[in-house]
Amino acid sequence: MTAYSELSAHFGRIAALSNAVGILQWDTETTMPKGAAGTRADSMALLHVLRHGMTTEPRIGDWLADAEADGELGEWERANLREIRRLWTVETALPADLVEASSKAVSACEMRWRQARAEADFAGLLPYLAEVLNLQRQIGRAKGEKLGLGAYDALLNDYEPGGRSERIDALFDDLAAFLPGFTQDVLALQAQRPQAPDPQGPFAIEKQRALGLRMMAALGYDFERGRLDISTHPFCGGADNDVRITTRYDESDFAKALMGVLHETGHALYEQGRPQAYLNQPVSQARGMSLHESQSLLVEMQACRSREFITFAAPLMRETFGGAGPAWETEAVWRRYTRVEPGFIRVDADEVTYPAHVILRYRLEKALIADAMPLSELPAAWNEGMASLLGVTPPDDRLGCLQDVHWPGGGWGYFPTYTLGAMTAAQIFEAACKAEPEILPSIGRGEFSPLVGWLRANIHAKGSLLETDALLTQATGRPLDASVFKAHLRRRYGGVG
Amino acid sequence: MTAYSELSAHFGRIAALSNAVGILQWDTETTMPKGAAGTRADSMALLHVLRHGMTTEPRIGDWLADAEADGELGEWERANLREIRRLWTVETALPADLVEASSKAVSACEMRWRQARAEADFAGLLPYLAEVLNLQRQIGRAKGEKLGLGAYDALLNDYEPGGRSERIDALFDDLAAFLPGFTQDVLALQAQRPQAPDPQGPFAIEKQRALGLRMMAALGYDFERGRLDISTHPFCGGADNDVRITTRYDESDFAKALMGVLHETGHALYEQGRPQAYLNQPVSQARGMSLHESQSLLVEMQACRSREFITFAAPLMRETFGGAGPAWETEAVWRRYTRVEPGFIRVDADEVTYPAHVILRYRLEKALIADAMPLSELPAAWNEGMASLLGVTPPDDRLGCLQDVHWPGGGWGYFPTYTLGAMTAAQIFEAACKAEPEILPSIGRGEFSPLVGWLRANIHAKGSLLETDALLTQATGRPLDASVFKAHLRRRYGGVG
Repeated sequence: MTAYSELSAHFGRIAALSNAVGILQWDTETTMPKGAAGTRADSMALLHVLRHGMTTEPRIGDWLADAEADGELGEWERANLREIRRLWTVETALPADLVEASSKAVSACEMRWRQARAEADFAGLLPYLAEVLNLQRQIGRAKGEKLGLGAYDALLNDYEPGGRSERIDALFDDLAAFLPGFTQDVLALQAQRPQAPDPQGPFAIEKQRALGLRMMAALGYDFERGRLDISTHPFCGGADNDVRITTRYDESDFAKALMGVLHETGHALYEQGRPQAYLNQPVSQARGMSLHESQSLLVEMQACRSREFITFAAPLMRETFGGAGPAWETEAVWRRYTRVEPGFIRVDADEVTYPAHVILRYRLEKALIADAMPLSELPAAWNEGMASLLGVTPPDDRLGCLQDVHWPGGGWGYFPTYTLGAMTAAQIFEAACKAEPEILPSIGRGEFSPLVGWLRANIHAKGSLLETDALLTQATGRPLDASVFKAHLRRRYGGVG
Repeated sequence: MTAYSELSAHFGRIAALSNAVGILQWDTETTMPKGAAGTRADSMALLHVLRHGMTTEPRIGDWLADAEADGELGEWERANLREIRRLWTVETALPADLVEASSKAVSACEMRWRQARAEADFAGLLPYLAEVLNLQRQIGRAKGEKLGLGAYDALLNDYEPGGRSERIDALFDDLAAFLPGFTQDVLALQAQRPQAPDPQGPFAIEKQRALGLRMMAALGYDFERGRLDISTHPFCGGADNDVRITTRYDESDFAKALMGVLHETGHALYEQGRPQAYLNQPVSQARGMSLHESQSLLVEMQACRSREFITFAAPLMRETFGGAGPAWETEAVWRRYTRVEPGFIRVDADEVTYPAHVILRYRLEKALIADAMPLSELPAAWNEGMASLLGVTPPDDRLGCLQDVHWPGGGWGYFPTYTLGAMTAAQIFEAACKAEPEILPSIGRGEFSPLVGWLRANIHAKGSLLETDALLTQATGRPLDASVFKAHLRRRYGGVG
């Protein structure tokens, strides 16, 4: 066997382990009974340690050196080596006991968070979260030393390879300067036009689920390689060829679950569209979390809040729930789905106010990782940030700094990818619609194949062949450019009402 | 650390891995989308190989030798060493590539079996099953060489430590001589008494589920450490502190799911009652599959087909399904639940005819492992055996040799434990009722705590502290004695009608 084929077989085994971890994570969020939390934490920690061991085996270094000198490899194989080198570099930076301690701390903190969020009890979560933060800081420093990066950038780099806070600072500062004024303009415009009443529930969960499944099918989601379930915090997870999404249902408002399903379906299409020929290899992985989020937001925000989509979807909504009257008219549905309203909860936020939620979290987590702020001050800093960026103050920490699983779950450095994703989505959707003028008209008829076909070819099937900037440049003609996102917001929200 | 504590920590890690495998197996049976089968097979194979590697590490041998010489250990620790020695002996008999090949062959064969069963297509399954059989034979021979046993006994020994086919032959020959004549007597008796009509469905799945959950609660099943779900082939599985059972619902007959739930709850009570102080150690494991099956059959057959149970349950059935009329009277329900009728399907069989299904499978699998019969002749041999033991001939292989997952799933040597379990159940239930005369009267009031309390103390909480014969002798005064089972059958089915 060549060094490359040894590496490829070895990383295939690592993928088999990661797929097991993915299913167990899915189970933990959707299915596991409460009393199994400790047992599950032990299993997850063990699998993480085993995976760390497999990813840091010394022979990988030898294989890499030999394979990188192999002149016969094709571009996919070379890209695969680049990804393996990256993983190997960051994993070998971590001692196994740190991996195990972090896995256990995250399991304990996530379980505690469920209760703390329900009870708005930040003090109860604090010691658990402090432990997770402390370990994330150690992980960031250890990786950063290897990569020549600060601790925060090293954490960010795991989710967004090549991502740097310096560049994000510039993009986010630009947005933070633009959005508050723009939001006020949009709110003023909105105030001038008549509001249709909200449709009145209850909306049976079964019917909501049926509508969600129908939309997933229209989008081309492959049910032979995935499922739709329920979890407190919606996500897309699972394993290769087993791409599971979740949602949560609110009987008084079906839009939440529906838009959640569309969002997660965007993620799932990316996962299901990854190159099959390399599916268990690092090069087949999605190209970072901002690209991932761009695919969910492209579906949810760019495509499925368009007038075309609502023209297709509003009759289905009326049919599903037996809706009639002014609240159910297509124009009213569109207005409701593009309503801007500053609120407390990130996942419920509209396109215009969403970036403020992210900018707040990004700034706070950077400060916490840098030890520039005590964790105990997080609730106060959160509330101040909400007031200054969005003009609202959460009444308690359940609606404030306890709302997201990311920090208890060890996902530090993840948040900025949401807004990078929103900007990327705008840029990709613009390029797609330019290349395929049929995309928007066909969405009006409930046909997504022109859009999804273009995404498959230009994004999904590329896996990690190219690095982020190169992929975006190949697909859209240039690297990430915030002006497209701003132009999109101005067009949809700032123009005629 | 002492050698014992090193061993204990190591086997705790192995348990963490086994718990992950258990949840993935549950997922495969209940949840996994079809298209993920290949990916899942890779994950299972990898985890099996990793577990095999952990269970055969050379340092275990050193630790064992040191720990076995340690005079300070208590009885639980010594029993734990005995179990670890047993596992180590059989695992070190297998090369890793055999473990991997068997895991992959089983995954492929199980998937193929689903389709083959649906289509009654034995020929389509044959090459997959031949591969599984071939690997099971190799596994049996390799372990047998280490243990001084034949291949079949070596396989049996994994499910029933200490079990030997010589002893089973004697017990089963005794039953095979007794049952056909007895069955004819019972059928003649039954024919003389009036049959109540069957209750007419459909019985909504939701209501069936609610009734099942109510029974599980009455039995003391801990829902904080388990769940009830649906699968094609009902089972009890999952992980430590996460003991999941499944059932399948038939809208025309609620008794199938209900009795299935009671059966699996019996298994689950054993698992949930294992000694917590040693939960991740081999000594905490259930004492073999005949004991395990004794617990499910004790609940389903001994307790829950008693007149006392039916007196409690029949009103609940009427309440749940709104039943009224002769089919729903308590006496009619009892007669239906103790009706004897030779049939094709093992899992639907009554107490009297069930052993014939097992004896058939036991004889066939022994012959197949010994290479004394070509696999291609299985369908014919099956049908002949059914005709001779039960007087019925399956119309196709779906109702014949394709009905069970055990052989495709690599569970060779497992079947005899069902009937050993039925005999053990009769013996344990008799001893329990003698020791606690309140057991049967309290079941009549839906109170299971006298029964379950006795089982907890005398069986469940013992884990693998004692070997099977010793455990049974401690609990009932003697090792397995087929006469108790025969006396039970005579009392329930052969006496007054």
